[in-house]
Amino acid sequence: MSHLEERLEKDLNEIRTALAKQAEQVEKQVINAIRALQTGSRDQAYATVLNDHPVNREMRRIDRLCHSFIAVHLPSGSHLRLLSSAIRCNIELERIGDYAVTISREAVQLANPPSGEIERQLDNLATGAQAMLSQAVKAFNELNADLAEGTMVMADPVEHNLNEIYDAMMGGEAGTDLKELFAIFVIFTNLKRVVDQAKNLCEETIFAVTGVQKRAKVYKVLFLERDGSFLAPMAEAIGNKLMASTGNFGSVAGEPGEIESGLAAFLQERGIEFEPTRCRAIADMTTHELASQHVVVGLDAPVSEFVENMPFHASVINWQLRDIEGEGEARYEAAYRELAVRIKDLMSLIRGDE
Amino acid sequence: MSHLEERLEKDLNEIRTALAKQAEQVEKQVINAIRALQTGSRDQAYATVLNDHPVNREMRRIDRLCHSFIAVHLPSGSHLRLLSSAIRCNIELERIGDYAVTISREAVQLANPPSGEIERQLDNLATGAQAMLSQAVKAFNELNADLAEGTMVMADPVEHNLNEIYDAMMGGEAGTDLKELFAIFVIFTNLKRVVDQAKNLCEETIFAVTGVQKRAKVYKVLFLERDGSFLAPMAEAIGNKLMASTGNFGSVAGEPGEIESGLAAFLQERGIEFEPTRCRAIADMTTHELASQHVVVGLDAPVSEFVENMPFHASVINWQLRDIEGEGEARYEAAYRELAVRIKDLMSLIRGDE
Repeated sequence: MSHLEERLEKDLNEIRTALAKQAEQVEKQVINAIRALQTGSRDQAYATVLNDHPVNREMRRIDRLCHSFIAVHLPSGSHLRLLSSAIRCNIELERIGDYAVTISREAVQLANPPSGEIERQLDNLATGAQAMLSQAVKAFNELNADLAEGTMVMADPVEHNLNEIYDAMMGGEAGTDLKELFAIFVIFTNLKRVVDQAKNLCEETIFAVTGVQKRAKVYKVLFLERDGSFLAPMAEAIGNKLMASTGNFGSVAGEPGEIESGLAAFLQERGIEFEPTRCRAIADMTTHELASQHVVVGLDAPVSEFVENMPFHASVINWQLRDIEGEGEARYEAAYRELAVRIKDLMSLIRGDE
Repeated sequence: MSHLEERLEKDLNEIRTALAKQAEQVEKQVINAIRALQTGSRDQAYATVLNDHPVNREMRRIDRLCHSFIAVHLPSGSHLRLLSSAIRCNIELERIGDYAVTISREAVQLANPPSGEIERQLDNLATGAQAMLSQAVKAFNELNADLAEGTMVMADPVEHNLNEIYDAMMGGEAGTDLKELFAIFVIFTNLKRVVDQAKNLCEETIFAVTGVQKRAKVYKVLFLERDGSFLAPMAEAIGNKLMASTGNFGSVAGEPGEIESGLAAFLQERGIEFEPTRCRAIADMTTHELASQHVVVGLDAPVSEFVENMPFHASVINWQLRDIEGEGEARYEAAYRELAVRIKDLMSLIRGDE
């Protein structure tokens, strides 16, 4: 190993050690914040708030270390990737520290620690968040991309859990004192953020090790047609033909009728196998199914006409298709052309053209 | 200008132009989110959500530009500072984009746009947040540290405003539907975050131009003694002698009595001028005064005994001072020594030792 390589390894280790220590510190802060909340200990809550100051200072020091590493060593390839990840992990850890502070500050605002159903839910959520954070940190420290990959999925049950908690809160199970309710709401939201940042740490680990940026997401797009006679099934078929690698397309109807009999033949001519004779009714979808959609597109009717409460993370757009006129083949042709362009534009918007 | 210098300028300009465009885009997103909220337009809300995708992609592209700039040009001094700032501004802009998305998603959850008092408050807050963001972006684009400095103070009225809004909400002025209340709460919180990030942009600008990191904050520390006879005034005097540059120390009493007559002489021997004869009662402080304290320290009684609702951002610690025994000079001496160490440790914790 040359002198320069030795120096590079030494400086890199310094950064990794500093990050590992910072991560340990931040994990402790989260644990203390949760404990303060669960036990109602104001002393512990305020101690957690004050202990955020050293975390912030260490964040700035690590930032300086990273930038001076870059300036000194001119890293490239895997070393530059590691540094980029380190810079971002550093910011993420500092943010997790902030969430611990917010949880602690809200804990102090509560007259009593959470009890009953809310306590049970909190314990669940807190346990999940801590376990995930701890494993995410381990994966980054060991630069273990497989472990990072395995840790990311731990976020799903937490998200599911959170929806239940919000429902329980809206249902009045956390009491009716507004100030207390907001405090609990903020606490849960911040625990969720810990989970989000843990996920980010995993992504940084994967990037540092493999060079793969955040995996390309497969977007779920649902087309809605009033009677489901040809527009929605055609749009689904076009999407799945043109964009199968980046999108997952489906079709539903407001009040299902038969799918026009000529559609299958028309699509087959364009190399698209098509069999269904009826669209499903959007009213038959479960909330969970609907919530998993990324975009719901109203083709000839506003989606709101058929869905009263659209889940939080599903977006709705209503297209005003130009009048699709003519008969038989000509009509299909016109619809096909317009839909293909629209779908392509939509996917360019949400996915980009890389 | 050498070829390399020319190339460096060109690459730097590319990054600055990209950031300026991204900032413009993000500002638009915030404006659209607010407009969607104010008008109740779901189409605009969902369009804002979907338009976050290009913002995210551009963030990743700018990140790559920055890192490849560093790898290629090995910048130092003011160039490295500018790059560090650019990397952080890039992340901050992307986050502001996220807040626009959250505001839009919550807007969709509202049955009707905010009205009455809440509408008025929202307009205020939104106007303030937009103006500040726009000016912060201008300051960064022009690398104008003075403008950045002047913009940061715009955050104060917004924070004040927000407290009023929360009070209005707790008072029931936003209605009683829990789901709606949470939505409005989240919207206001996210507008506040826009303001926080605008402040960060200003700090990055100041750092890029002057090399000065986040200004050292002067922390307000308030000492509380049950009767205010000597511990609290002594602690105040010690703090203001040892740490005047980083702390602003005060003293109050739970139930004020006279300050012991020997204290002034004792302190004067240590070079500390001391005149007051009575501590103020903590009950006479306004909420605003109390809220501006960073830490409130209970010296011989728990602070909670005298303050029922501690403001959100003020931290409380209760010291268990060892028994301060003896009489006259010896008793003062013992208190002085213990307080000096404790105050120094406290300030090291919250401020560091740089």
